Order: sequence, then C-alpha cells, then structure tokens
Amino acid sequence: MNGNEEEETIFEIGAVVPRRNVKEEDEADCVQVLIDEFRKVGLIAERVVGVTDEFIKLAAPLETLGRAATELQMRKRTHIGIDLPFQWEEVEAFVRQPAGSLFSWCERFRCYCHLIYGIANKSRSAVTLKFDGKIFHWEVEEYLLQKLESEKIVKQVFPLHDERKRKKLLKSWALHWWSFTYQPIDEIYLYYGPKIAIYFAFLGKYTRWMLFPAAFGLTLQLVDFGSLQLFMLPAFFIVVILWAVMFSQFWKRTNSAILARWPISYAVADDPGYKIPSEEGSSLQPPMELIKEWEADKAKGKKAFQRYEWFGPLMRFRNDAIIILSIFCLQLPFELAYAHLYEVIGSDVVKFALTAVYLITIQYFTRLGGKVSVKLIKYENNENTEKRADSLVYKVFGLYFMQSYIGIFYHALLHRNILTLRQVLIQRLIVSEVLENLLENSIPYLKYSYKKYRVRNKKKSEKGASKGKIQFTSRVEKEYLKPSYSASIGEELEDGLFDDFLELALQFGTIMMFACAFPLAFTFAALNNLMEIRTDALKLLVMYRRPVPRPAATIGAWLNIFQFLIVMSICTNCAFLVWLYDQEGKWRIEPGLAAILVMEHVLLLIKFGFSRFVPEEPAWVRVNRTKNTTHAQDMCSKQLLRTISGGEKAFGVVRKLE
Amino acid sequence: MNGNEEEETIFEIGAVVPRRNVKEEDEADCVQVLIDEFRKVGLIAERVVGVTDEFIKLAAPLETLGRAATELQMRKRTHIGIDLPFQWEEVEAFVRQPAGSLFSWCERFRCYCHLIYGIANKSRSAVTLKFDGKIFHWEVEEYLLQKLESEKIVKQVFPLHDERKRKKLLKSWALHWWSFTYQPIDEIYLYYGPKIAIYFAFLGKYTRWMLFPAAFGLTLQLVDFGSLQLFMLPAFFIVVILWAVMFSQFWKRTNSAILARWPISYAVADDPGYKIPSEEGSSLQPPMELIKEWEADKAKGKKAFQRYEWFGPLMRFRNDAIIILSIFCLQLPFELAYAHLYEVIGSDVVKFALTAVYLITIQYFTRLGGKVSVKLIKYENNENTEKRADSLVYKVFGLYFMQSYIGIFYHALLHRNILTLRQVLIQRLIVSEVLENLLENSIPYLKYSYKKYRVRNKKKSEKGASKGKIQFTSRVEKEYLKPSYSASIGEELEDGLFDDFLELALQFGTIMMFACAFPLAFTFAALNNLMEIRTDALKLLVMYRRPVPRPAATIGAWLNIFQFLIVMSICTNCAFLVWLYDQEGKWRIEPGLAAILVMEHVLLLIKFGFSRFVPEEPAWVRVNRTKNTTHAQDMCSKQLLRTISGGEKAFGVVRKLE
Repeated sequence: MNGNEEEETIFEIGAVVPRRNVKEEDEADCVQVLIDEFRKVGLIAERVVGVTDEFIKLAAPLETLGRAATELQMRKRTHIGIDLPFQWEEVEAFVRQPAGSLFSWCERFRCYCHLIYGIANKSRSAVTLKFDGKIFHWEVEEYLLQKLESEKIVKQVFPLHDERKRKKLLKSWALHWWSFTYQPIDEIYLYYGPKIAIYFAFLGKYTRWMLFPAAFGLTLQLVDFGSLQLFMLPAFFIVVILWAVMFSQFWKRTNSAILARWPISYAVADDPGYKIPSEEGSSLQPPMELIKEWEADKAKGKKAFQRYEWFGPLMRFRNDAIIILSIFCLQLPFELAYAHLYEVIGSDVVKFALTAVYLITIQYFTRLGGKVSVKLIKYENNENTEKRADSLVYKVFGLYFMQSYIGIFYHALLHRNILTLRQVLIQRLIVSEVLENLLENSIPYLKYSYKKYRVRNKKKSEKGASKGKIQFTSRVEKEYLKPSYSASIGEELEDGLFDDFLELALQFGTIMMFACAFPLAFTFAALNNLMEIRTDALKLLVMYRRPVPRPAATIGAWLNIFQFLIVMSICTNCAFLVWLYDQEGKWRIEPGLAAILVMEHVLLLIKFGFSRFVPEEPAWVRVNRTKNTTHAQDMCSKQLLRTISGGEKAFGVVRKLE
Repeated sequence: MNGNEEEETIFEIGAVVPRRNVKEEDEADCVQVLIDEFRKVGLIAERVVGVTDEFIKLAAPLETLGRAATELQMRKRTHIGIDLPFQWEEVEAFVRQPAGSLFSWCERFRCYCHLIYGIANKSRSAVTLKFDGKIFHWEVEEYLLQKLESEKIVKQVFPLHDERKRKKLLKSWALHWWSFTYQPIDEIYLYYGPKIAIYFAFLGKYTRWMLFPAAFGLTLQLVDFGSLQLFMLPAFFIVVILWAVMFSQFWKRTNSAILARWPISYAVADDPGYKIPSEEGSSLQPPMELIKEWEADKAKGKKAFQRYEWFGPLMRFRNDAIIILSIFCLQLPFELAYAHLYEVIGSDVVKFALTAVYLITIQYFTRLGGKVSVKLIKYENNENTEKRADSLVYKVFGLYFMQSYIGIFYHALLHRNILTLRQVLIQRLIVSEVLENLLENSIPYLKYSYKKYRVRNKKKSEKGASKGKIQFTSRVEKEYLKPSYSASIGEELEDGLFDDFLELALQFGTIMMFACAFPLAFTFAALNNLMEIRTDALKLLVMYRRPVPRPAATIGAWLNIFQFLIVMSICTNCAFLVWLYDQEGKWRIEPGLAAILVMEHVLLLIKFGFSRFVPEEPAWVRVNRTKNTTHAQDMCSKQLLRTISGGEKAFGVVRKLE
C-alpha cells in the first residue's frame, strides 16, 4: 500500500491575485491571510510572483483530502460493492483507483473545492484585511474566498496541469501518431477524469469501425461493377445502416467494459463533484421537502411525487415544443431562403457575399438559441446537472441540425441531380472538417498569444519601454494565460466536449443521411477522424488549461442523437433510392418502390430489435461485478448481518412487522 | 414481531402413497420410516387415509424453515438493501413480507423441497424397507424420497391449498363480481407467489385501460358522423395505437410499483426456487468452469466469456431461424391452403368437415412445434429457466401467430370486402373468447369428475357393489384428484399461465391489427376480459391444485410480444387504410397515400420514442428504494466499514494497490 503518488507535492490548484506594489510582509495582508488559512486546513501553499499577477499554488497531502472527503460524506465504492460515505479511519474498506491512488481526480478536485471554499472566520470578531492599501473586514462566519472573489482580489481559481504526467501523456498519446486509433484511455481517465476519457474512447472506437465502410465506399468509387452497379448503392446503404446499428450497440458494451476498470461510484451522475459549493444551493436540487412529505404520509407523498415527476417532463416537453416550433417558424424559412437564393443567384461574388451574411447571421442565431435554451432549461426540474446538460444538447442540436442539413435537402429536392449534390457534400465536408479542425486548433493559440501580448504591453506601458521582451518564467502564469476548455454555447452547463461531440455528430449525420448519394464521404470522415484524435489530444494537453473534471460515465445525450440520426438516415436514404429509381418523378408504387418500402421497414425493425439481441453489458463485466460483490459480501456476511440487526436495534428503525 | 401465521399448523405440502391392505404398525414399513424421517428434520407430518390412496400432509415450524434456508444459503433482502445469505441466528437483519411473515411462499416451498428431498441415509448400513410385502434396501447416502419415487411408492408430491386463505380469497377475489377490475394483488402474491399475482395485475390493468377504446369503438359503431365518417377510422387508429403504446409503458411502471411492495430478492430470476433439487444438476447452470478460468487468467477468461456469450445468442438465432423457416415452409402453405379452400368451397357441410380436419391437424401441428421448440431450447445455453421459458414463448407464439391471423389476412387480401372481413373477425372473436372461456373452465372440472369417477369405479370393483356412493371425505384427497395448473405446451418450462397469456396476446393481436376494420372488437374484448378476471380466479381457486410457485417478477416475454404486436398493427392498419382509400387497386402514391406513409412513420417514431419520455420506474419507487437503502446503510456505515476492512484483512483478499 504505497501512497507515493500522493506524498509527492504536486500542485493541482492555482489561484490568481493581482501583483501588488507593496512587497513588505504585512500581517493583515489579505493574500498572506489567505495563504495562512490554506495552510491551517492542511494544504501546502506556495506563492509565485508572475509578470503582472501573483499566484498561489496549492497541493494537498492524502490525509487532508481524506479528512475533507470524510466531512463531505463523499460516497465511495467499498470492497463489498456498495457505496458508503467515506471515512478516513476506515480507508482500507474503499476501492482504489487503477493506478493505486485512493481518490480519483474528480474526487480530489471536489475535496480541494470543499477545503478552500470552506474557510470561514471562526473567531469571535471580524478580521481586518488589507489589500494594496484598501481595507475591508472579514466578518464572522463569512467565507474568505467568496469574499475575496467578490472584492475582485482573487481573480480566478483553476486546476493546474501536472507537468510530469502531462509530458508523459504528450509522448504516449498526442504525439503517438503511428498508433492510429490506439489511446491510453486509463491514463487519460486518471489525468482528465471520466468524461474526457470516455469521449476519446468513443472517438477511437468510432474511427476504428469507420475504416470498414470507408474501404467499401472507396471500392465503390474506384471499381466499375458493370451490370451490378444498380444494386451496389442499395447494398452499400444496407451495409452502412447495419454497421451503424451495430456500432451504437457495441459502443455501449465497450463503455461498460471501460467503466468496469474504473471504480466510479454508482451515484456518479448525481454527484455534484465539479461544482463549487457556493453554487449548490440552487433550486434544482432533489426535492427534500418531497421526501419529508413522503415520510410523513405515504399516500399523500406518493401523489406529491407523481405531481413532481410529471411536472418535470411536462416542462421539458413544453420547452422542447417551444424550441422546435421556433426552429420551424424562424430558422427553417431563413435557411430555405438562403438555400433558395444561393441556388438562384448566378454571380459568384454575390454568392460569396450572401454566404458571408448568412454565416454571421447564423452565428448570432445559434448563440441566441443557445441562450434561450439555457434559460428554458432553468425552469425544468431536471434531476442533476448532467440531465440539464443533456437537455441543452438536445435543444441546441436541433438548431445545428437545421443549419447543417436543410441546404443539402433543399438542393437534393430542387435539382434532383446526383452530381451537383455530391459537389455540395464535398464542399460541406471539406469546409466543416478541414477548416473547423484548423480553426479549433488555431483559435486557442491565437487567444493565448493575444493574452500574452496584452500582458506584455501593459507591463511595458507601466515600466516604460525598457528591457526589451518580457519572459513568462513561471509555469502557472503561462497556464493562467491559456484559454479554458469551454463550450461555445451554454458555458454554465457544458465544457469544451460539447463542440467536439457536435462536430462528430454533424459529421455522422452528413455521411449517414446521404450515404447513397456519396459513399466516398466515409473515407473522408475516417481520414479526418484519424487526424482528430491526435489534434484533440494536442489541444487538450498543450493549448488549454487543465479542464475541471466532470464525473459523467457515458456519452449521454450524444448516443441518443447518433441513434436518431441512424433512424433518419434509413428514411432519407430510402427516399433517395426511390427518387433515384423513379426518374420520371411520378411517385408511383411499382415493384421497385414496394421493395424499398419493405427494405425500409426491415431495417427499422433491425434498428430497434438489435439492442434486444446484444446485451449492453458484456458477460465478463457482469460476472466480474457480481462475483466480486457477492464474494466480498459472503466473506463478511456474518459480521454484516450482525451489524445490520445491531444497527436496526440501536437506531430503532420501526419496521412493518405486522 | 409475531410469527403467528407460521406458528399455526398449516399443512402446505402433500405426498401420496397407495393405500395398503396391511394396516398394522410395522417398524420397517417404508411409509412409517418416511414419516419418521420427516419428523426428524423438524417437519410436522400427518397421515390421512383416503379412498384408494394414503396421504402424508406436511407442515413446518418457522425455525425448521429458517434452518433449511440457512443450509441453502438462500439469498434474502436485508434492511440495508443488499441480498445476503440467510442466517437463522441473524433473522432480525432480513426484510419481512408485507403480511409480516419471514418467508414468502416461494421461499417456503424451496425450503420444503430442500428438507424432504434432502433426507439421506446417514447411518453406516443400508436400511431394509417394506411396502405391501415388497422388500427393498435404502442404501447408505441414498436419498429416501427419490428412492421411493423411483420405486413408484410415492406417487406425487404437491403443494396443498390453505383452506382458510383460499376461502378468504374466494370471497374477496373470485366472487367479488361487482368490483369489476379490482383485485387483492397483495393477497394473491402471498398465496400464489409473484408470477401469478403479476399476471392478474396485468389482466386487471389491461382491462381497465381497455374500457376507453371500447367506449370509442362503440361510439363509432352507433353514431353516424356524416361527412366526418371518412376521418373517423384514421382517428380511431391513431388513438388506439397511442393507447397501446402508453399502456405498455405504463404497465412497466405499475409493475415496478407493485414490486416495490414485495421484498423480492434482486437475484429472483436466477433463483431456482421452484425446482426440485434432483433436477438441478442440468448442464444449463451458469458456467462455473468459466468463472474459474477467469480467476486463473483474466485475459484468457475474458475471451472464454466472450465465446460463451456469443455462443448462446448464436444458438438461439439458429433455433429461431429453424422455427421461422419451418413455419414459413410448412405451416404457411398449410394455412393458406385451408384459407383458400374455405373461401372457395360453397357447401356448408364440406366447409364444416374441412374445418374439423383443419382443427385436428393444427392441434397436432402445434403440439409437434412445441415439442421441437423444447428440444431446440435444450441446446441453447440460456442463463436460467425463466430465460428458457421466454425463448419457448417466442417460438411457440410464432406458430400461434400464423394459425390465428393468416386466415384473416388471406380473407382481407382476397375479398377486399370490409363487411365479410368483419364477419370473419366476429366469428373469430366469439369462437376464441366465448368458447375458449367455456372450455378452459369446463375441461378441468370434467377431468376432476372423471378422475373421481374412475377412483370410485375402481373402489367399487374391488369391494363389490356395496354401500352405494363413495364419499371423498378428506380435503387432501380431493385436491389430489384435481388437475394441476400446467401449460398445454412445454410443460417442463411453463405453467398454466402460458395458456392464459397466450389467449390475451392473441386477443390483443386480433383487436389491434384489425382495429380499423372492426372497432367494435374492443368492446367485445373488454367485456370478455371483465369475465376472464373472475373466471381465471375461480379456476385457480376451485378447479386446480395449488400451483407450484414461480419467482418471475415481470411478465417477461409477453410484454415484448405485445410490443411486437403494436408495431405490426401500425403497419397492417396503414396497409388497410391505403387499401380502403384506394378502391381501384392501382396502388398509386397520391397525397392520401403519402399522408398515410407519413402517419405510419410518425406513429413508429412515437412507439419507439415514448419509452424515453416515461421512465419505467415511478419516481416515488426509486426514491423510496434508494432512500431506504442509503438510510439503513448510513446508519450502520461505521460498523459496516469496520466489517469490510476487517473482512478484507481476515480473509486476505489481495487487492491491486500498486
């Protein structure tokens, strides 16, 4: 049992305060007080002076974290397979992380937040604090950090990169180009938490699976099948749909196999681990008053629960209806107008101008939609932040869905020409993939450079034009200047993964829904994703600050969106095939059309039936889980039973015995 | 904490031995030895002499059952929400049944089986047993009851009715006509076990929900909507599909709400509770050798598990393919031939003869199909008996599906006449419902009477024609003569519920798939089901022996069949509507047809999307479950943790700490 890793001093949290002119050690200097308080709760604090700001780096010995976890009553997996509140004294009973450490990065972060935001004035009188000559009072029972944040003294608190691990990951992951889709998922989990690790596991598997339809698509493009050519498109369509159905089911299995390796608490989704305590008092917490009512009167409580349960979905339904209606009434005409104008206009210059206007408007529109969605979601009583984030994902995806595909649909219906449709698809794919990849990697770098430049400029203007270039020597300052990994829409609910998943989902939609029109798209997508794995890794390791860890254990709403896109693509491809074989445009049911209708129904049946035949959890995961649990439970079943009946007696739980 | 119920002597198991001529008390008389052995293991045994047979009635005090459960290491729910092996010393730790008794009827039955089938010769030498002058040896370590059964001395062992509770149920349930769909589900659970209780809960909810479309169908029949008439059928269709989709989802909620009241062990489906121990050594047990291999080498074990996991579905797929192919190649032509001949033949007499021949053949065919299915299922490695039973249900339902609907489909396609189709449907409904109800209630009575008659006859011929009528005075003898509640097909896997569910599913299929053709069918079905509730109850309480309890906690495969029928009925009704509005038979896509296609897709979407919006478990059930569990766990978390870390140390589990 070595705690090596935790015993080394690794600074994991940084706080930023402005650099002051006065440098003498003042007892009442609020930064000094803050550092003293940090040390009092058991943290290791180090002060670093940067170019324009000062930084406090924080580390925590294992015991400090353990005590914080005990205070938080953090539920952790025990060896008998149930989750119990953590207790530092009984640390032996809890399952450790794959690398041997006791707490995962998520849990550590939560403990840090609890420790640093939990510092209150425990003395009898207010403490006088000074900052750059300004004087203010730290009242009794007031939280210090919140106070300093509201006084704009502490600018930010953010997680720090662990340089040793970051470099290791950079070598074994981001720069490991020749290993194609392989990624060290476990190390990513240990460093970034489960949500980001699951994203990369998904991206890897998706890319690996995509090689097959990519090869098929390429073959279709290159080889002339002669008289069979007519049947190749439907064959490709069927293969691709089956591929997608199997992929989405097998991904679930992979996901549960991955989770089997990480001892993530069952209540992981309910765990507000990445929230800063001050935010917790929101109105969206589980309804304690309902539970109380339930305890007081079962029948009444049941009704209250039913009301509560139905109210949530109803609100969500209303909100979804609002979003869908506004998409149909506002966005659809706009998109159609753009698509129509684009098709009608002959001059390339006007087309270009139109596209520019369109792009600016749509940016604005999407941002507006995102804001409206976030506002609406506040009135839904989703059970936890993950659910709220999912709700946002569904709503925002609606906007992007229209944006991305209406133009293509319109083009397909208007021109009914497979060649120009292919052109449009190629354009879209190149624009969306190559350009977006470039943008998403260059923008954070530009932001970082701009910030550096601004800081240097400020410094220079303060000090006068002296000493030439100013160097950023401390690592923590460099990290502070890096942009944070946040979503383009709804920052309060999502992190940067939102944009990465959105890109994947829109790509999946494009290649699947128009699979018959352009089989080569799969090859493009596969190549792009092979790139994406490494560039996303680089982005996370080099461009951004270390993200706040989130405890999600699945890809959540995105899998449902993938499934929805599969169903859509069954319908659109069938329509496309009907149109292809019905050149006269008379829409008559002939054997061909009937055959396509039958095929559509069979594919839909397979789509919805397949999940029944392939279980979501591999047998070995299930057996391993239950075996471990029952084994441990049986080992100590005698003591357990004595504890239970003892507990029952001691705490006087009244059971229904009559 | 009263154990009243268990302290009264209620005889729950009966064993039958032939009545012997010798009546003296012989020490070596095998029946006497059996009774002595029963008493030795702590059972209360009573001997009853009947007309031609002798009966041993068995009861068990609570402690005897508790000791048996401890020996069986029966997993039971504890107050902290996890299942642990039962221990009589720590009885306080376990959750009790709603009526206050410790063991459910399922568990009691399992204990009885363990006790009576576990009696072995523990002495050093074989014991000599006599029966009616015949002498044989009870060898060392041989099981007594198996021996006597193989010697045909013990004819049967069967569960006995509890007269007091039976009469109470008869009053509050079977003869409670005016309460329509209300049934005392909890009492049914306590008396018959979960599987039968769930069936009746389902039947009740189904009937209650059916009143709505029944009223709508009746309105459609009676009221003339004038110019709106054209739109009433599609409207009815949409309403009925929505109704069915909602019903199937809300049933899942009801099911979990019901289960929340009963402390059924989580592993209930894996619990071979209703199996007699001698059967247990079958090859279909969970693969112990795989688990061992897994423990020896994780990587190899994982592969072995994957092989095992894929082998099962593959075999099932192969079997399903065999069944489906044979249905299509053998049954379909046969059914079509019958349907065709029936339509073509003019003479009523020939029609009647044809139907008679058909009915006999189809009986034979179904029985053959059932046997083949049971044989095939033996080669699948389904995880447990429930899964195997489900697999049988799917296969056999295929046979019945063809049998029941091909004729109607054929008629619809051939004649395209809505009036004759309605006639056929009315015929089918009346035949299937009224006649089947009559048959299923009269056949067991006739069987019972015939058995009684045969026994009397035998007795008379033995004694000569004396004393006039022989009375069956003992209750246990009467019960012995009653038929057992068994399935018409695949008796080794299913009980009588198979036939009851089959009837419901075929009714559901008929009314749903031809909803547009004959809306009044719902009214017929609702009336029939109101009857069915009480007649089924009467059948179980009066006609049959008490069935062996089975631990199934859901309606299993039948719900999937209902869902399948909903999907089928979306397609068939759409086809029907197309046909109705396309009188010329040209199958052209016009706005009408396109509208129907769109409607079909929307309905299919709703069908598959609805389950995402309505959770399967009501919020109050979930909160209650987790709250209770976490509450109890937290109460004794300190002791639990100590136990766990103690257990870890004491038993030396090697954990991955590095």
